Amino acid sequence: MKWKLTPIAKVINGLTEAPRDWDQVKSKLVFKRKYVEGLYKLNRFEHVWVLFGFDKTSETLMRVHPRHDSSKPLVGVFASRSPTRPNKIGLTLVELVSVRDNIVTVRGLDAFDKSPVFDVKPSEEEIDY
Amino acid sequence: MKWKLTPIAKVINGLTEAPRDWDQVKSKLVFKRKYVEGLYKLNRFEHVWVLFGFDKTSETLMRVHPRHDSSKPLVGVFASRSPTRPNKIGLTLVELVSVRDNIVTVRGLDAFDKSPVFDVKPSEEEIDY
Repeated sequence: MKWKLTPIAKVINGLTEAPRDWDQVKSKLVFKRKYVEGLYKLNRFEHVWVLFGFDKTSETLMRVHPRHDSSKPLVGVFASRSPTRPNKIGLTLVELVSVRDNIVTVRGLDAFDKSPVFDVKPSEEEIDY
Repeated sequence: MKWKLTPIAKVINGLTEAPRDWDQVKSKLVFKRKYVEGLYKLNRFEHVWVLFGFDKTSETLMRVHPRHDSSKPLVGVFASRSPTRPNKIGLTLVELVSVRDNIVTVRGLDAFDKSPVFDVKPSEEEIDY
C-alpha cells in the first residue's frame, strides 16, 4: 500500500512525559542501517525538519482547544498543532547538533522516547543549490 | 495499521507537468466532507504547511543530484528535497488564499493535479495562542 509509512529512525531521549520546555531537549534519531547513506551531507545544515509519528495519540477530533486549555475557544484541528488530527504526523523544525554514522542528534524535537521518524528534510532557507 | 495515511483532500490545479514557477500556481484543496469541521478558523492564517503525497514517484534513492542536475555533486536524500525518499511525503509552506466550505485555495503548492493531501498545519510563526 503506497501510503503506508515506513519508520526510518527512532527517537531516543528518555522522555515519556512532556517536559516544561521542549526547546532544550536533545534527542538522538537512531537510523536504520539501510538509510545511513541518505544522511550524506546532511551535516551542512543548521536546522532540519523532522516528520515523526504521534505514537501516544489514537483519538481524532475535528475541533480542539488550543494547547489543551479549555478556556481558549475551540478551533478546527487543521488550525491547530494538536495530535488529534486524522494523520498522526508531527512536524518540527529542530536544531541539528551532529550527524555521526547512523545517529542524528537534534535539539528541540517535541517527540517522546521511541517515536517513529518518517522523514528528515533540510530547512528551505538553508538550501542554496 | 496505524501508519497508513488517509487522504483528507485532493489537489486540483490541472497541472500534470512542472510549470516554470510553482510560486504563482493556485491550487484548490478539495476536502472530504467529514473533515470540513476541522477547517474552522483556519482562515485566520496567512500561511499554512501542506503535507501531500508524491503521487508520481515510486523510486527510492539514497543519493541524489540536487534539482536533477547531474553537474551538481550527489547528496544524501535527507539532505535534499527530492521525492525519491523512503516516505513519499512533500512538505510546502503555501500562501492561504481562501477557505470556503470544503475548498481551501492556496498559492505556491508544488504538487501535481490530484495529489493526495494528508495534513494542513498552521505556520508556527502565526500561532499566537
